[in-house]
Amino acid sequence: MTSPAEQTSGIPTGRPAGRAPGRALVVGTGLIGGSIGMALRARGWHVSGTDADPDRANAALAMGALDVVGSDPRADVAFIATPVGAAADVARTLLAGPHGTGPVVTDVSGVKAPVVTAVGHPRFIGGHPMAGSEQMGLSGADPDLFMGATWVLTPTAATDLDAYSLVQSVVTSLGADVVALAPADHDRLVAVVSHVPHLVAATLMNAAADGAEQDAALLRLAAGGFRDMTRVAAGHPGIWPDVCADNSRAIVAALDRLLGDLTTIRDQVAETDRAGLLEVLDRASAARRNLPARATRPENLAMVRVPVPDREGVLAEITTLAGDLGINIYDIEIAHSAEGPRGVLLLVVASTDAAPLAEAVGARGYRCTVSELA
Amino acid sequence: MTSPAEQTSGIPTGRPAGRAPGRALVVGTGLIGGSIGMALRARGWHVSGTDADPDRANAALAMGALDVVGSDPRADVAFIATPVGAAADVARTLLAGPHGTGPVVTDVSGVKAPVVTAVGHPRFIGGHPMAGSEQMGLSGADPDLFMGATWVLTPTAATDLDAYSLVQSVVTSLGADVVALAPADHDRLVAVVSHVPHLVAATLMNAAADGAEQDAALLRLAAGGFRDMTRVAAGHPGIWPDVCADNSRAIVAALDRLLGDLTTIRDQVAETDRAGLLEVLDRASAARRNLPARATRPENLAMVRVPVPDREGVLAEITTLAGDLGINIYDIEIAHSAEGPRGVLLLVVASTDAAPLAEAVGARGYRCTVSELA
Repeated sequence: MTSPAEQTSGIPTGRPAGRAPGRALVVGTGLIGGSIGMALRARGWHVSGTDADPDRANAALAMGALDVVGSDPRADVAFIATPVGAAADVARTLLAGPHGTGPVVTDVSGVKAPVVTAVGHPRFIGGHPMAGSEQMGLSGADPDLFMGATWVLTPTAATDLDAYSLVQSVVTSLGADVVALAPADHDRLVAVVSHVPHLVAATLMNAAADGAEQDAALLRLAAGGFRDMTRVAAGHPGIWPDVCADNSRAIVAALDRLLGDLTTIRDQVAETDRAGLLEVLDRASAARRNLPARATRPENLAMVRVPVPDREGVLAEITTLAGDLGINIYDIEIAHSAEGPRGVLLLVVASTDAAPLAEAVGARGYRCTVSELA
Repeated sequence: MTSPAEQTSGIPTGRPAGRAPGRALVVGTGLIGGSIGMALRARGWHVSGTDADPDRANAALAMGALDVVGSDPRADVAFIATPVGAAADVARTLLAGPHGTGPVVTDVSGVKAPVVTAVGHPRFIGGHPMAGSEQMGLSGADPDLFMGATWVLTPTAATDLDAYSLVQSVVTSLGADVVALAPADHDRLVAVVSHVPHLVAATLMNAAADGAEQDAALLRLAAGGFRDMTRVAAGHPGIWPDVCADNSRAIVAALDRLLGDLTTIRDQVAETDRAGLLEVLDRASAARRNLPARATRPENLAMVRVPVPDREGVLAEITTLAGDLGINIYDIEIAHSAEGPRGVLLLVVASTDAAPLAEAVGARGYRCTVSELA
């Protein structure tokens, strides 16, 4: 696989070229790893893979998620989809590589700051595909699992520009929409929208199960709303002690907020505060109805070109700025100038997002230009 | 419509006869009332209907939920599907009737003890179809809304046997599975499986909306699990202040339990108590996977015959006993003996439920016999 630097020797004017498929390594061939393998192979990649359980790696091969079982010293990119506790060690081993230059490495674990800090390498990009499923294991693997899903990447000030661009490009080619966030921001936000809701679902389910021991009728009264609210609790519990340990501070903070909010509601119910209850429920109803559906590709795209010093930190600053604004970057490329240490960051976004992004980037002191893409 | 007493002059030996469709009145033609009207008309009933908003009654007529707009003095049964605050007054007016003998009356409000107590009439049967939908209003009405849904009826010691039998029969004919519960038991159980989950969904949604004001990326991280957990919060908030007021004691008790459970989890996360967390999540996962799907009619049915004194209280005692055991009664009939004040309660249940029900009924001092139905 050629790097963008080889593809573009000057300041390009067109859309970033799609990357040719290369060689990928998947470590951990469960639901996510298997789905990544299938999706990559469907796009022409050569995919090798390993798993701590050799039977599972062979099963992944048999179902078409891999071309070959084993590690590939020539891999361009490696996806680590092991249990979170193993991810950092695997990443360090891969990045050392046979000649000190291993593949670009990314992972899929659900808490990012600990693994990103533990690896601490410019060519390691923390990742988190938000493709939830209560199905467990390789048998649920699906090459379309990531179509329209949000896939968080967590660049840092140390992140290598070309490494990031490669991971963004590959993940985007699988149909996912990349959101760049600082690792700690990712962890704080998923505590609110994923980790705490999961713990709440389990708590509601256990309370109902306890109640059903007294009144067998209880579960027959559990209609669609209750089923919806507890569905995630059916998932495999094995990963959650690690998630809770790795993200304990953010989870405790979000739980404390929830406990406060629920205490307020409890008092409103106890005091028959109709106006207060209606306000809470009205807000929630409006917010839920406005919750965006799965992202769909906009019809009109624009490119934002940002000439940048070729130095550490620029990429993380600008991509996470877009993430904080809720702006989806559909494609990204670093065009290294032939003349010196400067380069141009090429960002493809929805046309409607181009002006707000350019304004925010400009406010950080970068000049930038916007052009519509045909 | 003939009463069971006219259909069966002696002690019957066969299955209860289906009832011929008669005349029904629907008061309140929103989602539930409109769906009831459609479902009844599809089964040959003549359905009249009224609504506090004349335009809505006319819309119900136009979409085929009613035969005629207006009240029907000859109605056999009336379904009150008004906002809960109006139900008791409407019921009392209908039960007074033009000549003191109005129709059998049932309602659909989501909290039962207050309305059952307020009406306090032997021919009023509290009801609650658990057919949840976040769709609001008549436009979502669907004649199949109740197929496979649980429909709670709340007989009391004062409930008239024939009135109950009529409502059970009609509701069952709409495809619903009747669960008989004492009014206060219903209210306690729905606090756990419906009211508190709804308040929790609203609280989670508001916390996420607040977070999104700081980080626009937050809602892009809201994957399927979060969407599932907050779906009910999208519903029309209007009914909830009344529900919370009418069922405040049970809701506060269930919220207090939830607050305690969540505080325990919060401490487990803060202290990295992996074993404790895993136990909580394992229990919830097993319970959720065992949550029964929508009831399906069993292939084999049996009839339990219970000779009973023709006195108040027997019906509520035996039907709510079945409800407490989680046993679904598919059909019920009261066969009045021609010889005296005694009669026979005929209960159709799944074959597998017949022996446990007979045993429990026997333990209450009733003799009973079981026979398989072809």
